[in-house]
Amino acid sequence: MPVLVMKFGGTSVANLDRIRRAAKRVGVEVAKGYDVIVIVSAMSGETNKLVGLVDETSPLYDAREYDAIVSSGENVTAGLMALTLQEMDVPARSWQGWQVPLLTTSAHSQARIEEIPTDNLNAKFGEGMRVAVVAGFQGLSPEGRITTLGRGGSDTTAVAFAAAFEAERCDIYTDVDGVYTTDPRISPKARKLDKIAFEEMLELASLGAKVLQTRSVELAMRYKVKLRVLSSFEEQSDEAGTLVCDEEEIMESNVVAGVAYSRDEAKMTLLSVADRPGIASIIFGCLSDAGVNVDMIVQNISEDGRTDMTYSLPTDQVKRAEQALDVLKNDGGLNFQELVIDEDVAKVSVVGIGMRSQSGVAAKMFKVLSDEGINIKVITTSEIKISVLIDRKYMELAVQSLHDAFELEKA
Amino acid sequence: MPVLVMKFGGTSVANLDRIRRAAKRVGVEVAKGYDVIVIVSAMSGETNKLVGLVDETSPLYDAREYDAIVSSGENVTAGLMALTLQEMDVPARSWQGWQVPLLTTSAHSQARIEEIPTDNLNAKFGEGMRVAVVAGFQGLSPEGRITTLGRGGSDTTAVAFAAAFEAERCDIYTDVDGVYTTDPRISPKARKLDKIAFEEMLELASLGAKVLQTRSVELAMRYKVKLRVLSSFEEQSDEAGTLVCDEEEIMESNVVAGVAYSRDEAKMTLLSVADRPGIASIIFGCLSDAGVNVDMIVQNISEDGRTDMTYSLPTDQVKRAEQALDVLKNDGGLNFQELVIDEDVAKVSVVGIGMRSQSGVAAKMFKVLSDEGINIKVITTSEIKISVLIDRKYMELAVQSLHDAFELEKA
Repeated sequence: MPVLVMKFGGTSVANLDRIRRAAKRVGVEVAKGYDVIVIVSAMSGETNKLVGLVDETSPLYDAREYDAIVSSGENVTAGLMALTLQEMDVPARSWQGWQVPLLTTSAHSQARIEEIPTDNLNAKFGEGMRVAVVAGFQGLSPEGRITTLGRGGSDTTAVAFAAAFEAERCDIYTDVDGVYTTDPRISPKARKLDKIAFEEMLELASLGAKVLQTRSVELAMRYKVKLRVLSSFEEQSDEAGTLVCDEEEIMESNVVAGVAYSRDEAKMTLLSVADRPGIASIIFGCLSDAGVNVDMIVQNISEDGRTDMTYSLPTDQVKRAEQALDVLKNDGGLNFQELVIDEDVAKVSVVGIGMRSQSGVAAKMFKVLSDEGINIKVITTSEIKISVLIDRKYMELAVQSLHDAFELEKA
Repeated sequence: MPVLVMKFGGTSVANLDRIRRAAKRVGVEVAKGYDVIVIVSAMSGETNKLVGLVDETSPLYDAREYDAIVSSGENVTAGLMALTLQEMDVPARSWQGWQVPLLTTSAHSQARIEEIPTDNLNAKFGEGMRVAVVAGFQGLSPEGRITTLGRGGSDTTAVAFAAAFEAERCDIYTDVDGVYTTDPRISPKARKLDKIAFEEMLELASLGAKVLQTRSVELAMRYKVKLRVLSSFEEQSDEAGTLVCDEEEIMESNVVAGVAYSRDEAKMTLLSVADRPGIASIIFGCLSDAGVNVDMIVQNISEDGRTDMTYSLPTDQVKRAEQALDVLKNDGGLNFQELVIDEDVAKVSVVGIGMRSQSGVAAKMFKVLSDEGINIKVITTSEIKISVLIDRKYMELAVQSLHDAFELEKA
């Protein structure tokens, strides 16, 4: 029988009523003839409670024990979901990560999936089991210990199962009903997309859209897993939500698929740095060692053998970056005139695979912002996106203007 | 290095402060040179919470899912205990039942332990680990699923580990400081015993003393595991608590070790039953099929080929027993004149291995009760105990009088 993967996040299994609601959705797919693999998160709040206990016990905790403790939340949901399905006369059983087994690396708390052998589950499907409820977010290390996959681990678990079992589709049930052209809280004209290409979803996810974790989209793109995002709180048809798929499957699309934003950005500029080979490596090596996630980087033209180096980073990493560069300067490892910090910036991006074939998107974007009197501080581009750093106070205005200018409210 | 097993029940690990307190006790034993196996229960309240979720989801639940869900509480405590020990610089790690593995039968929710291979833990002890923190109450079935051991499962886990690893002793930390000659709430003269024989402990446990589960005492007796019961809430010396051991290790002891009681007993009498071979088998087979736990049984002398059959049972099973016998009578399977039910009785027992060699204990017991005007309704005896059924209103008086008469307050 064809296999379908369905993933329910923490808010979708927050209590027994919601678990029943989710189980009914699973029952609908079973009735259509699918063998279903259900991936569940912990009931919302549970993981935070367990993380709190760990943090209070041991601030610099052993990640192996952290994983053993924190993974228990998903196990409870998996068992409850299996029982709920059984109550509905659907043959179901729960599987913990080590029972599948979902094999991972030993990198505890951020393990990568290595392999999902399909024998165990397929044997049970062969015996008449219709639903395998799998505890998400967890796996088994080569040493036989429990690992967890880090942020977005349950989405990644779902996509990995869909790839391993060649599922027809991987449905991600969450608290929003799909992927929008932009955040509806900022632009009331935001429109739900029926389809979006993997590449676009990937850019949107890494640019701040919170619907799917970057890692799960990457994995889906690599293994061509059809990914659907939909709400667990609404009655669903087959066309509900947003399908994340190969761009070939999208017949017609707008040049720009969506406008993304990221609010808590900061900009740092090193004034008058020696412009010589290796200088960027020294600066960004130092920041990387300090755990700073640098995003956009711009280097000015050189004058008298010196240049200015500008980059953006999350606001909450500014202190750490400042300290690391101070140490480097005092050690004589880097010479610069001044470090200018601007903590009041935001990033706004337009994303669309149509940009590849259509020119003029960047020019149009800059004109829209200019017409609104918004100054652009940094620009970066890729094949399918353009990002700008602007004063934070203009962020909403920029998103709305761009959404209007590119007519994203129209399908 | 010699191995010590230490078990901490739910109230002893109810919160992070108590886990720290327990970990300090473990640290003391490690400093003495022991390799320690710590068995932990779930934080008190957690198991009830999980059982509540299961009951609400599925009243006639799949015991395999029940086990997978309910066992998660112990896993959390095991991880937290390991982290706490690590914070104290004691090399420790947690083990879940399937990781040891603790191999059990497939009888979910009441599995029996089959084997505990020692290789995995011993390899880690060899590498310098000093404490293995094991989640109690759980194991692995031949089918690779999680099992639980039923009531008192963590005590049983502890004793089984002590047997498998030939531990020097198995310390059961609980909320009382040892085994008493009787319940101190009933007789203020109750005295804590320094030592008690396995057989005596077994009788006391099955007669209503709630300190240790019968099953764990049976296992300790079979494998000659020295079992010590002590409080996790007091500072401890090596002589604290009560040692449950082989009778050879107890130099001098009173003839009677303790007085036990069971409050919620009922008595049923079938008047004028045909006195023929097989009649007892019909009656008690019928009650057993109905799930009634019959305790004491007395058959009167026969008169005109008919006799009276009396037995005791827990009060809350009276209705069930009555219905089963009614059905049997109506089906013509049993003929009796009347069923007399007395729901206001209690059982009082004196226990002691000294009875084997000393006669007159029964006579003394009956005289004490008679002097207090207490009528005896049923008597049963074993090699080391005498139990009587009496009116419930005399229960406290009987316990106090017997405790006084056998001078149990004196060591």
